[in-house]
Amino acid sequence: MLSNYKIDPIIIRGLDEDISYVDITSDVLLSASSIDVAEMKTKANGVIAGIEVAKRVFELVDPSLEVETLVEDGTYVESQIVIFRVKGSSRSILKAERVALNLLQRMSGIATMSYEYAQEVEMFKLRVVDTRKTTPGLRILEKYAVKMGGCYNHRFNLSDAVMIKDNHIKAVGGIKEAVKRAKDNIPHTTKVEVEVENLAQLEEALTAGADIIMLDNMSNEIMAKAVKINNGQAILEASGNMVKSRLRGVAEIGIDVVSVGALTHSVSAFDISMNIIK
Amino acid sequence: MLSNYKIDPIIIRGLDEDISYVDITSDVLLSASSIDVAEMKTKANGVIAGIEVAKRVFELVDPSLEVETLVEDGTYVESQIVIFRVKGSSRSILKAERVALNLLQRMSGIATMSYEYAQEVEMFKLRVVDTRKTTPGLRILEKYAVKMGGCYNHRFNLSDAVMIKDNHIKAVGGIKEAVKRAKDNIPHTTKVEVEVENLAQLEEALTAGADIIMLDNMSNEIMAKAVKINNGQAILEASGNMVKSRLRGVAEIGIDVVSVGALTHSVSAFDISMNIIK
Amino acid sequence: MLSNYKIDPIIIRGLDEDISYVDITSDVLLSASSIDVAEMKTKANGVIAGIEVAKRVFELVDPSLEVETLVEDGTYVESQIVIFRVKGSSRSILKAERVALNLLQRMSGIATMSYEYAQEVEMFKLRVVDTRKTTPGLRILEKYAVKMGGCYNHRFNLSDAVMIKDNHIKAVGGIKEAVKRAKDNIPHTTKVEVEVENLAQLEEALTAGADIIMLDNMSNEIMAKAVKINNGQAILEASGNMVKSRLRGVAEIGIDVVSVGALTHSVSAFDISMNIIK
Amino acid sequence: MLSNYKIDPIIIRGLDEDISYVDITSDVLLSASSIDVAEMKTKANGVIAGIEVAKRVFELVDPSLEVETLVEDGTYVESQIVIFRVKGSSRSILKAERVALNLLQRMSGIATMSYEYAQEVEMFKLRVVDTRKTTPGLRILEKYAVKMGGCYNHRFNLSDAVMIKDNHIKAVGGIKEAVKRAKDNIPHTTKVEVEVENLAQLEEALTAGADIIMLDNMSNEIMAKAVKINNGQAILEASGNMVKSRLRGVAEIGIDVVSVGALTHSVSAFDISMNIIK
Amino acid sequence: MLSNYKIDPIIIRGLDEDISYVDITSDVLLSASSIDVAEMKTKANGVIAGIEVAKRVFELVDPSLEVETLVEDGTYVESQIVIFRVKGSSRSILKAERVALNLLQRMSGIATMSYEYAQEVEMFKLRVVDTRKTTPGLRILEKYAVKMGGCYNHRFNLSDAVMIKDNHIKAVGGIKEAVKRAKDNIPHTTKVEVEVENLAQLEEALTAGADIIMLDNMSNEIMAKAVKINNGQAILEASGNMVKSRLRGVAEIGIDVVSVGALTHSVSAFDISMNIIK
Amino acid sequence: MLSNYKIDPIIIRGLDEDISYVDITSDVLLSASSIDVAEMKTKANGVIAGIEVAKRVFELVDPSLEVETLVEDGTYVESQIVIFRVKGSSRSILKAERVALNLLQRMSGIATMSYEYAQEVEMFKLRVVDTRKTTPGLRILEKYAVKMGGCYNHRFNLSDAVMIKDNHIKAVGGIKEAVKRAKDNIPHTTKVEVEVENLAQLEEALTAGADIIMLDNMSNEIMAKAVKINNGQAILEASGNMVKSRLRGVAEIGIDVVSVGALTHSVSAFDISMNIIK
Repeated sequence: MLSNYKIDPIIIRGLDEDISYVDITSDVLLSASSIDVAEMKTKANGVIAGIEVAKRVFELVDPSLEVETLVEDGTYVESQIVIFRVKGSSRSILKAERVALNLLQRMSGIATMSYEYAQEVEMFKLRVVDTRKTTPGLRILEKYAVKMGGCYNHRFNLSDAVMIKDNHIKAVGGIKEAVKRAKDNIPHTTKVEVEVENLAQLEEALTAGADIIMLDNMSNEIMAKAVKINNGQAILEASGNMVKSRLRGVAEIGIDVVSVGALTHSVSAFDISMNIIK
Repeated sequence: MLSNYKIDPIIIRGLDEDISYVDITSDVLLSASSIDVAEMKTKANGVIAGIEVAKRVFELVDPSLEVETLVEDGTYVESQIVIFRVKGSSRSILKAERVALNLLQRMSGIATMSYEYAQEVEMFKLRVVDTRKTTPGLRILEKYAVKMGGCYNHRFNLSDAVMIKDNHIKAVGGIKEAVKRAKDNIPHTTKVEVEVENLAQLEEALTAGADIIMLDNMSNEIMAKAVKINNGQAILEASGNMVKSRLRGVAEIGIDVVSVGALTHSVSAFDISMNIIK
Repeated sequence: MLSNYKIDPIIIRGLDEDISYVDITSDVLLSASSIDVAEMKTKANGVIAGIEVAKRVFELVDPSLEVETLVEDGTYVESQIVIFRVKGSSRSILKAERVALNLLQRMSGIATMSYEYAQEVEMFKLRVVDTRKTTPGLRILEKYAVKMGGCYNHRFNLSDAVMIKDNHIKAVGGIKEAVKRAKDNIPHTTKVEVEVENLAQLEEALTAGADIIMLDNMSNEIMAKAVKINNGQAILEASGNMVKSRLRGVAEIGIDVVSVGALTHSVSAFDISMNIIK
Repeated sequence: MLSNYKIDPIIIRGLDEDISYVDITSDVLLSASSIDVAEMKTKANGVIAGIEVAKRVFELVDPSLEVETLVEDGTYVESQIVIFRVKGSSRSILKAERVALNLLQRMSGIATMSYEYAQEVEMFKLRVVDTRKTTPGLRILEKYAVKMGGCYNHRFNLSDAVMIKDNHIKAVGGIKEAVKRAKDNIPHTTKVEVEVENLAQLEEALTAGADIIMLDNMSNEIMAKAVKINNGQAILEASGNMVKSRLRGVAEIGIDVVSVGALTHSVSAFDISMNIIK
Repeated sequence: MLSNYKIDPIIIRGLDEDISYVDITSDVLLSASSIDVAEMKTKANGVIAGIEVAKRVFELVDPSLEVETLVEDGTYVESQIVIFRVKGSSRSILKAERVALNLLQRMSGIATMSYEYAQEVEMFKLRVVDTRKTTPGLRILEKYAVKMGGCYNHRFNLSDAVMIKDNHIKAVGGIKEAVKRAKDNIPHTTKVEVEVENLAQLEEALTAGADIIMLDNMSNEIMAKAVKINNGQAILEASGNMVKSRLRGVAEIGIDVVSVGALTHSVSAFDISMNIIK
Repeated sequence: MLSNYKIDPIIIRGLDEDISYVDITSDVLLSASSIDVAEMKTKANGVIAGIEVAKRVFELVDPSLEVETLVEDGTYVESQIVIFRVKGSSRSILKAERVALNLLQRMSGIATMSYEYAQEVEMFKLRVVDTRKTTPGLRILEKYAVKMGGCYNHRFNLSDAVMIKDNHIKAVGGIKEAVKRAKDNIPHTTKVEVEVENLAQLEEALTAGADIIMLDNMSNEIMAKAVKINNGQAILEASGNMVKSRLRGVAEIGIDVVSVGALTHSVSAFDISMNIIK
């Protein structure tokens, strides 16, 4: 799904950053013809994402490396599992290692966190979705990792869906007018989401014909009322302080979507180590 | 310290990613001449890093915006403090907001975590340093943020210091030979670090004249012996599982440097919100 | 709406292409201090688009040029109207002229053609929209020009709306399954369009809950039946051989949207000349 | 003739523009292992240009696709001819299709128009040439297409031939001085062209030793006199309002070159469709 | 003559290479508010080229620096002359210094060498010209410096003039056919040069109508005969082992052009030092 | 040691510069299917550097070319030795030739000069090292060539070692304070070099704990005293006017390192010719 022409620039930036001149250790100490086999092994339980990206790092450093991926993205793996094997020039393996791991560990960290959120509500229709709170330059990788973990994507960026907030409403003079003006101007292929702060605004947004309504920082009680008022008309998205422990309660109310910035902005790297095995 | 010609490409990649065509909401709903004032306010206690980077995002989106930064990088701030103010075209402010916050919150998250690690050992000579486990494409920002938080940088990349690991030692036939061969080939301006797994290797590395010795995953007892053996000859760096709670104990032993990957690979965004205030 | 960081690379590619070394005529024959005033004048009636892009070309060639734009994008102008004036270094004006005109004339050509299509159906709800048949590298400018002329945009690219075609239907085993599988996987902010070739497929698509249905190459008679069957449920888009003369007939039937590739793939440059007037 | 390192950036810009994240339809609905065969077929008579460029689009999207080109650039083909076949991953074929067609149809549109112009005067020595009125970013492709259609190229850009216009003449004080000063400064490998508005200027330019003289917007009568005066000394180029119907008349007069901006600035896409055939 | 959009990428590559992270000395030791004045002074006699390029380096590092250039490109200066002054942030001055000097010293080295060659034949019509033997990535700067020193440019690259060599002649079957085929295909704005190895080939090339004839590695005696045979028909260019001491002799024979690769491929940096003076 | 992802952009810039459109000679005169064999032969004695870079130029122009390198970088070769052979499309060979030679000749020129310097002191511990006086954009190639010739590299750029100069000392208030402040702030992996102008400063620098001390423009007598005072504590680097003839004298004194800007800033291209041999 992620074409090379899209991920190569990301990888090359990583490599350029990590080697401004030569690998002053390996280029000096290892012979040009030295061959090794290295393996990546998980050190925790979680969901892998980015295995093909990691593979591509090695290919870009040295096309002669033989790389084998032993799991597919989206797979839940236990700790101590070998997920990746590479054979070839020792120098090349060591040059690629860090960038490959940095990407794979971050992506798998996101996938694992997303998996945990998704598991929490797997019996419900509720979707957990990401936000635009991603690392600049890595959004395609991070949103992809969210999906691999079992959550869903929100809009990709400011161009592909309308999100009407307080500020827009004030500028235009009301929710109704804002939705109308948006619909009159945007592509017919684009949805309109409105952020509301109370039930009165919710009703306005419904009347205006919003496709999606974001309930901003509401209590479960209020959201329950919102679901009732909505009665299936718009998609209801809850946002604001949506920690994992709250998800099931929100799901039970009948909310459709919960958006969670933490899925991409506050992630722990998934622990993977690489070792020369031969 | 971070010149525009270095950070502009990072910012522009972020903006390009966040707006593939237009801001389909604000370009439609806000008039081209609408003017606003917006402020960024902290929602937690911590150390700010990236305030000039955030400013630069707004400048790149629209040079006519008037931006005021109210704290300097490296400042510890309480929650609910206004740190940034921008006045100008509403459309431009909303286009820049997300990328600016994504960078500022990540950098401040790193600075805040670094601050907490640094505080832990502030009475000791021990330095807490970062690693190469950074987000590809953002290393200059992340290493900068580590410094702003009061920790230190390790080598920037594979080119600027030698790090001899197990694999190199095996390839060359011993620590002594590895250090010698490195010193014979690298610039006279470059230091040599050797990773050791036990005290025998430590003694070898000292004899070989290593500038820095990394004690890999050792217990405090062993490290205490290492400090004694070293007796001030090389810089001693402890690495492996260096959680914050362990730092003080390691500092008391007399270790010089502790390297912590988590400072950059497992960071929570520092909470900052932006609001239109006018 | 079009930020400089997005259009500057387009312009610089144009300039680089047009001057591989120096302007071998003007750099030799005009003195470095020679100052001129030049004006752009329309040579036909039509709608201007790209006037700010043209201005930016001059700024990038030489920031000291004083540029004045006399109309705004989207304005219908008669022939022989002065729309642009620039004062400053003669050398710089002549270096910028061709790239500025090439962009402005193409964009205004698109806007003018779009205007003519839009005029044809201005009394109707029918929208005329563009397609992805744009010039590689210039899509943001061309889609913008379509809007300036009074038509509308279709989806920007393959990422921001689903378009289910014959091939996808076959692969999945039916329209119903295709729409369901799409909706189960795409962001909740994304619409689903289905291309249908007959009324039976139309009914399937409606049952499946398609947001938009594209009627591919249908006669007006069939489309009239489609409108009846649809009864306002989905947005109906007509596509295929939609020449200008057919638009009004299609509008009268009650179709919502007509997509026209020619708006961007078969455009005549709008005639504008630039002359030194001082 | 067009090396990959020159066309790859053009193609990748097109692809980047057409897929900001994933192909939200095919990546969801088609299995990763689904294989198809697709063919491109002409829908009109004309000259093909860009078939290798189209091939390269598919290669860049997915190197495992098997592409077969069935005609060479410059070939005149009838309608309904299969010119291109590709076999491989369905997802990859659909991702490459639009950008490949956008380039191939534009280039073949230029080649076809150029063919029609060239045919008009094929019995004469008259050359029909293009101008600098090309689409920014695509000049190498468009000038190449002009040649494939049987017309010729004018100078590539401002650096490779001198073109002295009214403005230069005024600045320098006369045609003679302008030509002299140019010849004294430019590479000995570079020709000098002078644009003249009347026969007096033509004589001046001949005396000055211009290599090429552009007759700007002259009637056939005046041009006939110009040919006589010139008597084979300089190359005579006619420019300004050179519609196809006028070409034969101009050719009969004995003019050497006619330059036609429309060859690249007002082109209709050549109609080619692509279908999955398997 | 050299627009910023063309030289900025060259400068930024230089800066990126020279600062992979921060200036680890000045960013640590100098306060952010420290202000200095620095001057560049010549340490030899020669011709300056690149003073505006040097200025641009400082502007790109820090737009707040105040830069004053005290000579213009092309000026012959004695040793110990102050040619450049900059005032502003000490850190910024030191970051820009090396890249600015590297460019200015190389360009001035080329200009100075060109000046010496040009001086050698200033009483003659003979032109000394450069070649394509330039430093990859810097051709526009190096060819510009050649002109500043008083020599001339040969063709800029493979696209802007024909150069028929031995290999082409063999492939086509003779000089006459090669020249004819070239003229039949290239733009009418392009000249044809033929490289000949003896007088028989010279006569063939003249008959064929070559615009320029390169006499490859001929003795002065043979070249004298060539001048006679040519009798002013084509431009005669001598090439091969054209050391400075040989130039006057070649000039006296009546050769038009001598091409010298050393002007750009074997250059000594012109000695310029920069010092903080405040 | 030099990965393709690092050298490809350098090569492509060179190619882009050398072919703005097509190779107007070979693309016209040579048939697309013409095959040749060409060889590169040395025309002088010296050390080859850049043979893999040259090979990569041919691969980037045309991956179907068969390239054979007959020597390795760092090899000393006599004149008239064939070092490189390429077989394939004549057009492609001629398009790659100039850029390949420009890089290979410059790199081999540097290697050869470095070899001569290194030979001068091969019996001594003295290292001859390069400086930051490299050609902008080519530093990695030039520093690599220095090593191939037998000399050594100084720091790669401003980020990887501290160099305290006069200006920094003044700003901080003394050498001792400057070294201390540097050491307190820089990575523990980074060395500190201090530039001194007299023996008093040398003693200060030693006391301060400088790792390296640069003796700026000192006479051999003073340097001899410096060696004595230093007594093996710091690495001593001599700089300023270090012409080759002076090296042995300096070596005999016991200096550790001599830095020579000329190794990269004043280089003659190593003479290599390429000929079609088939």
